[in-house]
Amino acid sequence: MLSHEPTQQDILEAHNRIKSRIHFTPVFSSRSINSILGCKLFFKCENFQKAGAFKFRGASNAVFSLGYDDLKKGVATHSSGNHAAALALAAKMKNVPAYIVMPHTAPQIKKNAVESYGAKIVFCEPTLQAREQSLEKIVDEICATFIHPYDNYSVIAGQATCAKEIFEELNNLDYLITPVGGGGLLSSTALSKKYFSPGTKVIGAEPKGADDAFRSFRDRAIYPSVNPQTICDGLLTQLSEKTFSIIKNNVSEIITCSEETIISAMRMIWERLKIIVEPSAAVTLAVVLENPNKFIKKRVGLILSGGNVDLEKLPW
Amino acid sequence: MLSHEPTQQDILEAHNRIKSRIHFTPVFSSRSINSILGCKLFFKCENFQKAGAFKFRGASNAVFSLGYDDLKKGVATHSSGNHAAALALAAKMKNVPAYIVMPHTAPQIKKNAVESYGAKIVFCEPTLQAREQSLEKIVDEICATFIHPYDNYSVIAGQATCAKEIFEELNNLDYLITPVGGGGLLSSTALSKKYFSPGTKVIGAEPKGADDAFRSFRDRAIYPSVNPQTICDGLLTQLSEKTFSIIKNNVSEIITCSEETIISAMRMIWERLKIIVEPSAAVTLAVVLENPNKFIKKRVGLILSGGNVDLEKLPW
Repeated sequence: MLSHEPTQQDILEAHNRIKSRIHFTPVFSSRSINSILGCKLFFKCENFQKAGAFKFRGASNAVFSLGYDDLKKGVATHSSGNHAAALALAAKMKNVPAYIVMPHTAPQIKKNAVESYGAKIVFCEPTLQAREQSLEKIVDEICATFIHPYDNYSVIAGQATCAKEIFEELNNLDYLITPVGGGGLLSSTALSKKYFSPGTKVIGAEPKGADDAFRSFRDRAIYPSVNPQTICDGLLTQLSEKTFSIIKNNVSEIITCSEETIISAMRMIWERLKIIVEPSAAVTLAVVLENPNKFIKKRVGLILSGGNVDLEKLPW
Repeated sequence: MLSHEPTQQDILEAHNRIKSRIHFTPVFSSRSINSILGCKLFFKCENFQKAGAFKFRGASNAVFSLGYDDLKKGVATHSSGNHAAALALAAKMKNVPAYIVMPHTAPQIKKNAVESYGAKIVFCEPTLQAREQSLEKIVDEICATFIHPYDNYSVIAGQATCAKEIFEELNNLDYLITPVGGGGLLSSTALSKKYFSPGTKVIGAEPKGADDAFRSFRDRAIYPSVNPQTICDGLLTQLSEKTFSIIKNNVSEIITCSEETIISAMRMIWERLKIIVEPSAAVTLAVVLENPNKFIKKRVGLILSGGNVDLEKLPW
C-alpha cells in the first residue's frame, strides 16, 4: 500500500488497477434544477457505484494493492457503513476474509449489505474510541490488514479516480463540491483537481450540526467530531492527519448548511433526477441551495457520494 | 397525425421527429438482481424521460406532427397523469396552449407537474365517462386537437421509439416486458418488436386487481376496466380499439401479478438500482419475480415506464 501522499502517477495506477472492477458512473443533469438555480450542475452518480457508494473505489484499490501473504490473512476496518460494505465486497472479490467493526447505530441497510458480502461484523458503541479498541483487538489476534476508511493513502488514491473521471468527461468546471466527513473524498478530489484540472475550485460541504471539518479548516488544526447532530450518517467522523494535510493545501473552502436544506436538497434530487441518494450525498446540493449567488452562471460538479438509505426511515 | 397503424417507416420518422427533444434513456442492470433471479434483466429507464415517463415520446410525436393551423388552437387530453404532463410539456415546447382533464384523485406530484408546464387543468371524477364528457366540452368550445393518451396512432408511433432504442442497444432479447393499462406502451413495443426484433417475445404485465387487459387478450374482446383496485395509478385504463388490434396480433401473452409482489419489485428497484420508479413501472419486474422458472437463463428487457411518485405516500 502507498506510504506517501498520492502522486498523479499513483492515481493513474490506481485507476488502471480498479477500472475493470468498478462501475464507470454517469454524470446526470436536470434542466429544471438548472433553471431554478441559474447555474449548470453536473451530478456524478456514485450512488450507482458498486456497494452503493464511492467508497468502493478506495477499498478496492487498497485490497487489490496487497501482496498475497497479507491478502490471505484478510482485511479489517471500522466504518459507519459504506466503507464497511465496500471493503467487504472488495475482499469477497479476492476471496479473503473481511472483519468489520460497526457502530450498532448504523442503518440496517448498511448492516445488511456488509453481511450479504460475507464479512464478519463486530458491533461496538458509536464512538471513535470504541471503534478503534474493537478493531485493535481483531488486528492483534488475526493479523488482518487494517484498511482505514480514509486515513490511508491507497484508499485516497482509489477515491481520487472519481474526480478524475469527472474531469475527463467535463471541461471547465468552476467548482467541484464533495461532502466532507473524515475527508477521504474531499482530499482525494482535491488531489485530482491539482493534477487534472487545476483551474477548478474544490469545496467541501458539511452539515452545520457536524462542522468539525469547517472549523478545522478555518483554524488550521484538526478538531474532534464531538456529539455530531445530523441526518448525514456518513459524515460523523473527523479529519485525519493524512486527509487534513491534503485538504489544507488544495481545497478552496468548506461550507456548512442546515439540516432543513439537506433534506430539501435530498428530496429535490429524488424528485427531479429520479435517483436515490443518501442524506450525506445531498449536502453538496444543499450548499448550492443556501448560496445561490455564489454559484450563479457557474459550471458546478457535485459528487453524489452514495445511495444507501433505509427506505423505512425517510426524513419527510 | 397518423390515420393508420404505424409502419416501420412511420416509427423511423417519429424517432427522427422527436430525437432531439427527448432524452435517450439509459439501460441499467444489476448483478445482484440477476444473481438472485438467475437471468439477465435489462431495465430501460424511462423514469428518466422528460416529464418523468415514456409518455413524452408519444405526446411529443403527436404535437410535433400537427400543422400550424391546428397547433395554434392548442391540444387537449384526459389522463391520469403522465400523459397529461407529457402533453403539457410538448405543447409548452411549441408555445401553444394545452387543456388537461384530470381525475381529482391523480397523485399530487402529477398535478403539480402539469401545472408547472403551464397547462390548464380541468378536474373531473375518476371515471372514463366523466373524463370523456369534460374533454368533449373543451374540444367543442375551443377547437383544440384531442390527443388521446393511447388510442392515437401518432402517440403509438412515438412511444414505439422506446423499444426501438432498446433493440438498437441490445441483441437477442428473449423477452421484452412492458406494463399494460390502456395498451399504448404495450402495442407500440409490440410493433417495434415486429419491425426491429421479430425473435423477441413481448409480454404485457398487469396488476391482478386491474386485469381487464389480461381477460381481453384471453377472450379476444375488449373488457372495460371496472373499479380497478391497484396501487398502479397509471394502469387503471382499458384497452382501446387501436391498441387492442395491435396487441392481439403481436403480443405473446399478458401476465398478471399481485399487489404485494409489485410493492416488493418496486422496493427491489429502489434499493438495488438506486432509482425511483412508480408502481406502474415495477409491475414488469413483479412478473419476473412471480414466474422465476419462465425467465431463468433468459435475456429479458423491462421498460421502467415512469418515475412520478408522491414521496409522502410510499407503500412500505
